[in-house]
Amino acid sequence: MDRPEYPTALGASDLKTITLLGHDLAEDVMGTVGFGELAFWLATQRRPAPGEVRVFEAVLAALADHGFTPTAIVTRLTYLSAPDSIQGALAAGLLGGGSRFLGVTEDSGRFLHDVLSSVDGELPCDDGGWDALALATVKAQREARRFVPGLGHHVHKEGDPRTPRLMQIATEEGLFGPHLSLFAAIGRVHPQVLGKTLPLNGAGVCGAALADLGLPLELLRGFALLARTAGLIGQLAEELRRPVGNEIFLSVDLNNRSVAPEPYTDGGPRG
Amino acid sequence: MDRPEYPTALGASDLKTITLLGHDLAEDVMGTVGFGELAFWLATQRRPAPGEVRVFEAVLAALADHGFTPTAIVTRLTYLSAPDSIQGALAAGLLGGGSRFLGVTEDSGRFLHDVLSSVDGELPCDDGGWDALALATVKAQREARRFVPGLGHHVHKEGDPRTPRLMQIATEEGLFGPHLSLFAAIGRVHPQVLGKTLPLNGAGVCGAALADLGLPLELLRGFALLARTAGLIGQLAEELRRPVGNEIFLSVDLNNRSVAPEPYTDGGPRG
Amino acid sequence: MDRPEYPTALGASDLKTITLLGHDLAEDVMGTVGFGELAFWLATQRRPAPGEVRVFEAVLAALADHGFTPTAIVTRLTYLSAPDSIQGALAAGLLGGGSRFLGVTEDSGRFLHDVLSSVDGELPCDDGGWDALALATVKAQREARRFVPGLGHHVHKEGDPRTPRLMQIATEEGLFGPHLSLFAAIGRVHPQVLGKTLPLNGAGVCGAALADLGLPLELLRGFALLARTAGLIGQLAEELRRPVGNEIFLSVDLNNRSVAPEPYTDGGPRG
Amino acid sequence: MDRPEYPTALGASDLKTITLLGHDLAEDVMGTVGFGELAFWLATQRRPAPGEVRVFEAVLAALADHGFTPTAIVTRLTYLSAPDSIQGALAAGLLGGGSRFLGVTEDSGRFLHDVLSSVDGELPCDDGGWDALALATVKAQREARRFVPGLGHHVHKEGDPRTPRLMQIATEEGLFGPHLSLFAAIGRVHPQVLGKTLPLNGAGVCGAALADLGLPLELLRGFALLARTAGLIGQLAEELRRPVGNEIFLSVDLNNRSVAPEPYTDGGPRG
Repeated sequence: MDRPEYPTALGASDLKTITLLGHDLAEDVMGTVGFGELAFWLATQRRPAPGEVRVFEAVLAALADHGFTPTAIVTRLTYLSAPDSIQGALAAGLLGGGSRFLGVTEDSGRFLHDVLSSVDGELPCDDGGWDALALATVKAQREARRFVPGLGHHVHKEGDPRTPRLMQIATEEGLFGPHLSLFAAIGRVHPQVLGKTLPLNGAGVCGAALADLGLPLELLRGFALLARTAGLIGQLAEELRRPVGNEIFLSVDLNNRSVAPEPYTDGGPRG
Repeated sequence: MDRPEYPTALGASDLKTITLLGHDLAEDVMGTVGFGELAFWLATQRRPAPGEVRVFEAVLAALADHGFTPTAIVTRLTYLSAPDSIQGALAAGLLGGGSRFLGVTEDSGRFLHDVLSSVDGELPCDDGGWDALALATVKAQREARRFVPGLGHHVHKEGDPRTPRLMQIATEEGLFGPHLSLFAAIGRVHPQVLGKTLPLNGAGVCGAALADLGLPLELLRGFALLARTAGLIGQLAEELRRPVGNEIFLSVDLNNRSVAPEPYTDGGPRG
Repeated sequence: MDRPEYPTALGASDLKTITLLGHDLAEDVMGTVGFGELAFWLATQRRPAPGEVRVFEAVLAALADHGFTPTAIVTRLTYLSAPDSIQGALAAGLLGGGSRFLGVTEDSGRFLHDVLSSVDGELPCDDGGWDALALATVKAQREARRFVPGLGHHVHKEGDPRTPRLMQIATEEGLFGPHLSLFAAIGRVHPQVLGKTLPLNGAGVCGAALADLGLPLELLRGFALLARTAGLIGQLAEELRRPVGNEIFLSVDLNNRSVAPEPYTDGGPRG
Repeated sequence: MDRPEYPTALGASDLKTITLLGHDLAEDVMGTVGFGELAFWLATQRRPAPGEVRVFEAVLAALADHGFTPTAIVTRLTYLSAPDSIQGALAAGLLGGGSRFLGVTEDSGRFLHDVLSSVDGELPCDDGGWDALALATVKAQREARRFVPGLGHHVHKEGDPRTPRLMQIATEEGLFGPHLSLFAAIGRVHPQVLGKTLPLNGAGVCGAALADLGLPLELLRGFALLARTAGLIGQLAEELRRPVGNEIFLSVDLNNRSVAPEPYTDGGPRG
């Protein structure tokens, strides 16, 4: 019986050479390919054009760090508790990158993609067309009592500064595609349906831009996690120089109030 | 401005005493409360009866270890790569405890609970009544082209030995409740609908039994993870004495075949 | 070329049976073997005697939960941020089980074991002999300016209630072995050397007891992590019913004060 | 009592603006700052010069992916087992980034830094001087029966192609500092001491280059993990398109051979 073989187009090496994505790592990649460019290339196995790299790196910058998010607090507390394992502190922080926080990027990209995929025939070719599609989309979500991913922000109620900036960069690079077009239209028309004006948030516009770059929708959350890894290293570096983890821990623990246990009972049938 | 207070009914301590669940840890818990009993108590804040502990520990035994599962391989490879961090090796293994493997326990418990919650009036009081409910349930899933969680097994095609045993233990302890009753009925009636006989699998019966114990449905996966933690410690202990991680790694890597990159293109609209 | 074979004495299965540790899982383990007993058995591949199980489970109870530790806060914040992944919330919490918090159990067990291994000939047979060994041990640590693992506690300055209780249980079960004997002696003699009386802490006595049980020293941290897994499930269960994660997050984030960046410069030589 | 305040120089936001590292994120960072540049800036709170970015990104490229390493296998198997959690699959892979694999980068940087810090007065100013320091260093390690971190490679026995390339890039950018100088000298002189010629490996030269860039030594492993995060996303992207995880799992599991349990006994004293 044969042993299985596992092909890969990523890294490989032999006695004298190392290849990455089919290129000589030392000669053709090191010193030549930027890190954002490489990350894009690894995810798509297609070398991106400079404009694609600029949009992609703008997205990574937008998602890298937002201060004391749960992921940042988790990384600092895990480092406090297990300073012997940097990998554990980073991994713990990334585990917070789920549906509620980083998930919006992925949800927005998927949502826009699904709407576009449902269009029969040609996609709209002007703002009027996009507005009509956006209006139908927002109405359908409203009727289904579902939110429109990427709409609304708890702090930037009057507008998320990342949104117009990323749209501008995508336009400059000729990468303002159908996902961003639909997202922008949703921003224009939703007040007619919802009766109030909500901001298009940064996570949402990042999802739209990543989808327009043709990146795998299943991995949009992964790019947010890549950006956040750089941010969490920044959090650890700051924690090393100006620690606050122990103070955060004590601010919770010192307030610890013991209360009487309260038996759990779920509402379900118990025969 | 006040500092927030965070109440807990779990562990608390002061200069002279440590309490857990409102009891004196040293005097009333240590040496008196078994570990399975304690885990149940911590999850429900209700001390279980001996029969409940027996059923609960039978479930944990059923889920503790299944040999070289992906979670076991992951823990061994992570220990190979980072032997300095036992916590990392265990955490990495637990991260495989998601929808596909350990998730069946949770999915089955939730599914059965949802069906029972949808019943108007009294639940069935005899096998005939449970069979009727099960028949309607399986038909509805079939029409919706959905699987019935807990039905089928890739190895134990003629029956999973854990299933009758756990049902027997629950019966002995007077804890064969509505979730197990419905699950058993599904085992009796599904051939009429599906045209073939599938086994009721061990993960499914564990989910039904945990739900009959009144444990939080949102955490059924958590109990499977607790059981697996003990199993992964066993995997690490064996790896320490009879290592195979490096051989597993090499069996994959030596077969590494570099192939030409293949640009990713998703099927979606690109304007 | 042959395919490699990976032997294991843990879980295995075929069409009709599932074995665990060489026994029939359904018939001989489920309903018969407690969870603490099973965890011990998995780690040692030796079935423990009832007294060993009682001491082992007393250790697990002592380490299961200490309220709002960093690990508990991390699990709650990760669940807040990624409620879709219970395994991620538990894994993130366990990643805090490193050198500083749970590590004391392992460090104490290893330290005592190393001292005992360095003894030429017979181990002491009475308190006088243990005191002499302990005195030499504490002096050597003092001269090397090293701490004695397991000595001292930031809260229980007058004594950790878990320590005498666990020693009592071990004595009742005839399992008060050399590690506990040396640890107890260190508690008696250290004031002569250090000039002050420090408590023998709970993590330290747990490490001594686990070592006397003959459990693998490399995995002592693993047993602390197993105990903590049960505690973290309790934390999640409480978070589901009485959430505080968001309040903890906001108490940190609302205090977020942006300050000017401060370039990092390490003290090292820069040519 | 006041609530604590936690200062940070990383991300912060208010109603209208978001700042990162003291700059306006949307206007001054997005579209302007590359991802490698941003990661360096976050870790040091100092904006790197273009040459520093080029060396830094060359290091990240060198460490991004090495094919089917344990970390890559772990990420693919975790995704197989829990496809609902991309963050879990990435975190699990990163947890393998410990002492044995990615640790060499950190160990080399720290080792070189310690040697340089121990030099009284001026550092060497020519190859002769560096060779003398390197000779003394290798001799000292040999006498202490310790390895020289960064020396030797299991595949690239005749030389790691990344090493001369990274040294060339650092030279081109005027960033060939004392760590690289000492590392290069170790490559020249070690055969006189060890009696055989070993290659300077890629992980080692990366550690030397990162140390010459003045990055925090405690976080050198973190940069290897950042690079690897991009590689693991590439592994996941490939797994999505050409899955091998299940085949890898089965190649281990199908070879599963149950053997008799073998009681654990450590060599230690047992009273």
